Amino acid sequence: MSARPNGVDSQPSNNLRARRIALDTHDQPVILTRRDCPVCRSEGFSAHARVRVQNGNHRIIATLYQIDSDWLGPGEAGLSESAWRRLQINEGAEVHLSHPQPLNSLSLVRGRIWGRRFTRQALKEIITDVAGGRYADIHIAMLLTVMATAGLDEGEVTALTDAMIGAGDTLKWGREPIVDKHCVGGLPGNRTTPLVVAIIAACGLWMPKTSSRAITSPAGTADTMETLAPVDLDLKAMRRVVEREGGCVVWGGAVRLSPVDDMLIRVARVMDLDAEAQLVASVLSKKIAAGSSHLVLDLPFGPTAKIRQRTEAEELGQRLKSVAEHFGLATRVLITDGSAPVGRGIGPALEARDIIAVLGNHANAPADLRERALMLSGELLELAGAAAAGEGHGLAEKTLASGAAAAKFEAICSAQGGMRKPPSSRRQYVILAKQAGVVKEMDNRRLSRVAKLAGAPGAPAAGIELHCRLGDSIEREQPVYTIHADSTGELNYAREYAFSNGDIIAISASD
Amino acid sequence: MSARPNGVDSQPSNNLRARRIALDTHDQPVILTRRDCPVCRSEGFSAHARVRVQNGNHRIIATLYQIDSDWLGPGEAGLSESAWRRLQINEGAEVHLSHPQPLNSLSLVRGRIWGRRFTRQALKEIITDVAGGRYADIHIAMLLTVMATAGLDEGEVTALTDAMIGAGDTLKWGREPIVDKHCVGGLPGNRTTPLVVAIIAACGLWMPKTSSRAITSPAGTADTMETLAPVDLDLKAMRRVVEREGGCVVWGGAVRLSPVDDMLIRVARVMDLDAEAQLVASVLSKKIAAGSSHLVLDLPFGPTAKIRQRTEAEELGQRLKSVAEHFGLATRVLITDGSAPVGRGIGPALEARDIIAVLGNHANAPADLRERALMLSGELLELAGAAAAGEGHGLAEKTLASGAAAAKFEAICSAQGGMRKPPSSRRQYVILAKQAGVVKEMDNRRLSRVAKLAGAPGAPAAGIELHCRLGDSIEREQPVYTIHADSTGELNYAREYAFSNGDIIAISASD
Repeated sequence: MSARPNGVDSQPSNNLRARRIALDTHDQPVILTRRDCPVCRSEGFSAHARVRVQNGNHRIIATLYQIDSDWLGPGEAGLSESAWRRLQINEGAEVHLSHPQPLNSLSLVRGRIWGRRFTRQALKEIITDVAGGRYADIHIAMLLTVMATAGLDEGEVTALTDAMIGAGDTLKWGREPIVDKHCVGGLPGNRTTPLVVAIIAACGLWMPKTSSRAITSPAGTADTMETLAPVDLDLKAMRRVVEREGGCVVWGGAVRLSPVDDMLIRVARVMDLDAEAQLVASVLSKKIAAGSSHLVLDLPFGPTAKIRQRTEAEELGQRLKSVAEHFGLATRVLITDGSAPVGRGIGPALEARDIIAVLGNHANAPADLRERALMLSGELLELAGAAAAGEGHGLAEKTLASGAAAAKFEAICSAQGGMRKPPSSRRQYVILAKQAGVVKEMDNRRLSRVAKLAGAPGAPAAGIELHCRLGDSIEREQPVYTIHADSTGELNYAREYAFSNGDIIAISASD
Repeated sequence: MSARPNGVDSQPSNNLRARRIALDTHDQPVILTRRDCPVCRSEGFSAHARVRVQNGNHRIIATLYQIDSDWLGPGEAGLSESAWRRLQINEGAEVHLSHPQPLNSLSLVRGRIWGRRFTRQALKEIITDVAGGRYADIHIAMLLTVMATAGLDEGEVTALTDAMIGAGDTLKWGREPIVDKHCVGGLPGNRTTPLVVAIIAACGLWMPKTSSRAITSPAGTADTMETLAPVDLDLKAMRRVVEREGGCVVWGGAVRLSPVDDMLIRVARVMDLDAEAQLVASVLSKKIAAGSSHLVLDLPFGPTAKIRQRTEAEELGQRLKSVAEHFGLATRVLITDGSAPVGRGIGPALEARDIIAVLGNHANAPADLRERALMLSGELLELAGAAAAGEGHGLAEKTLASGAAAAKFEAICSAQGGMRKPPSSRRQYVILAKQAGVVKEMDNRRLSRVAKLAGAPGAPAAGIELHCRLGDSIEREQPVYTIHADSTGELNYAREYAFSNGDIIAISASD
């Protein structure tokens, strides 16, 4: 069709002066204008609108709030810290405001709700829009929920993985093997990764480990490692560490390997949801982007683990293995016992203490954590051809007992920016046994809940310290576990939950 | 288990001084504190946390943002306008901050994701939490998406409807029949409700109509009616209008009939999603809460209507009818033609002009809108026993032609607070035919998109004015439709979309 202008003014400049208002909105970009701001008037922007804000090549979609106050000038745009960071702007510089492009890929998400499978192209468009910050949290929640509810097939999960790899950086190491491990989680305290990296690297293999922060758990490997050394390394810094020491444990988000994963995880955490498709794509996109060639997967199952049934674990393992092989990643899947927490600590700093004890071969080091780390390391050494079949475990044990692993871990920590001592909590509260008996059950989920209510992982020193294990006999009034917190409010909150859930650790009279 | 305190301080008072900071966040409650605010320190609140804020009996869950600035005192809590309204607080009064209770009902939503059907009790708990403002937008998006993807069965939809009724006020009129109508929508410009109310009320039946604002369309009935009279009436005011005039057209949100519906709709709008379960519960909860006894449903279907296939329309109609009958609501379902927009205007004010033309029996009044209104009114009159079978349409036509309906409409408008003239747009742009030919197709969805990009319904005068109908022959350069907008930005935005979608109204050469 042709067209005839009719009363159209020339477009106004749509620029505002950027002002840093030191507003912390976590990672949500917010732009604040006066209600009488001329740009908003001419563009028809009202409060809570999503607005495209541009500074040169840096563009974000921000949520607009408006204020009736001279605290802000009519020509000024107050920017939250998150917006300020992403726009890489200076005080007083001009930002350009405009309407975001229509979010066309959202119709593909709606199509999946109505049962239309995702094509490779569809997932590419969706993930590109997510990576570009064009999806509001509501849209990401919609995407995660439909993936979880509808259940993606192998082709879709492979395409999702591929799209997530494509949305970030990828690493080439120019050598093989590059090994990695991953535990599907759900087991509080099961923090084997730093141990495995230390053992493997001490054996001369390269293991450039990127880890997530907690999704729904009281601690992710990145949270725990952060209490021992810096983990926010960029690609260049990470490469330097690996080339020097053969291993590292850094936060995946900081190196922009599959950055979309962290955007999905942030929303999944609010939903308290772990969906298979997201889990598979999340795990594998990180490994593949990191240039791994050999991968060992730990899938613990148990009544209160993330995976309830052995059959579930086997299905998920099969899905992970077959998707991984689409990308030429050699994968071994281990189905392990997930009936109780591993180690003593639950929460970043408390888990870090367990790691130090194992590395130091302390007499009181948690034996279960140690054995898991040796088992995984052994499998990895065999899979990558560094040990003959059946000899991996022995080699791993020798490497740990000799102190070589401890030395390697310290070297990695200093290469990452310096080893440090995990913090101690400001407040503690000890839960005592109401009766003598035998520990019959430990509820992973509700123990995690207590640790989270106590402030973990946000407060690194917060969490739970276990004083008993499955099968232990304990006396009346004997300490069962200690709640650690930094704030009184959180300690009380965790304590109330512990009281109203007296059976989190079930003790049955021995006679 | 018993417990032994250990280093627990006495809980601090957790109070802050409320300050109205004139911050417009639309309907999202926001609380702003300084980062060094002692309450946040002791409770472990960080930016973007959801915090329970209490003023006497008034409680809200607000999103916390933090600011490093002396603009706010360490003991102050800056409240957004939405938070200020809901807390009904005065400047300087104290608000109490605490952790929200754990959102237990969310596990029921997750359960539905994993395939566990909703029980009546589950939906009651979920809807109660939504009504209490305990669901973040992410949680509501999760709920809407799982309902749409999994598809609720009749028992679940009935329970959802019941829960939504229970979360709000309900009306008793002490007489029968109380009639109502509803159109499932998707047809731009199909604004029959004000006409039907006028005709029905003029015939002596009571029709206390509550309408929604737009969900994903450029105008809801409440948006359109608002350009002719106030619609934000409370229950008392609404009752006064109906008892005096026998009918009204007010916004459902203002009368708190099924208030949860409006909370779901706000998020559904961002998702651009219409799900059957939500649609059925949304429609019926409003009617039942409003005390209706007889209901006529208009379900238009067409290639670009909300409902694409006749079979779909029939299934939805069946679902609506059977759920309605669980509540003793006599229902008649009409499956109608939805292949093109109805009337000339698309957008609140432009649709209002069509209504006035029909009521005034103007020669140029849109005939299709008039006929639809007569058909629906006729069916209602018969269903409610005010006309014998086959005589409803005639009675409706007599009532309209005589001017009785127009007089009744004016009386209703003044009873609602005074009839007013719909606003005119500040900017227009005329789209012309690129070639001569016959109008073969009109795309409801993309026409709605243009109207929305032009600012409807937020800008009441914005939208589209159609200059042709399906089947019309038109000349080259003849106006096809006019885009109306208030802001240059929006006009340009709508215009660009219209250009890149030249086939929104498909004209095929006549030869």
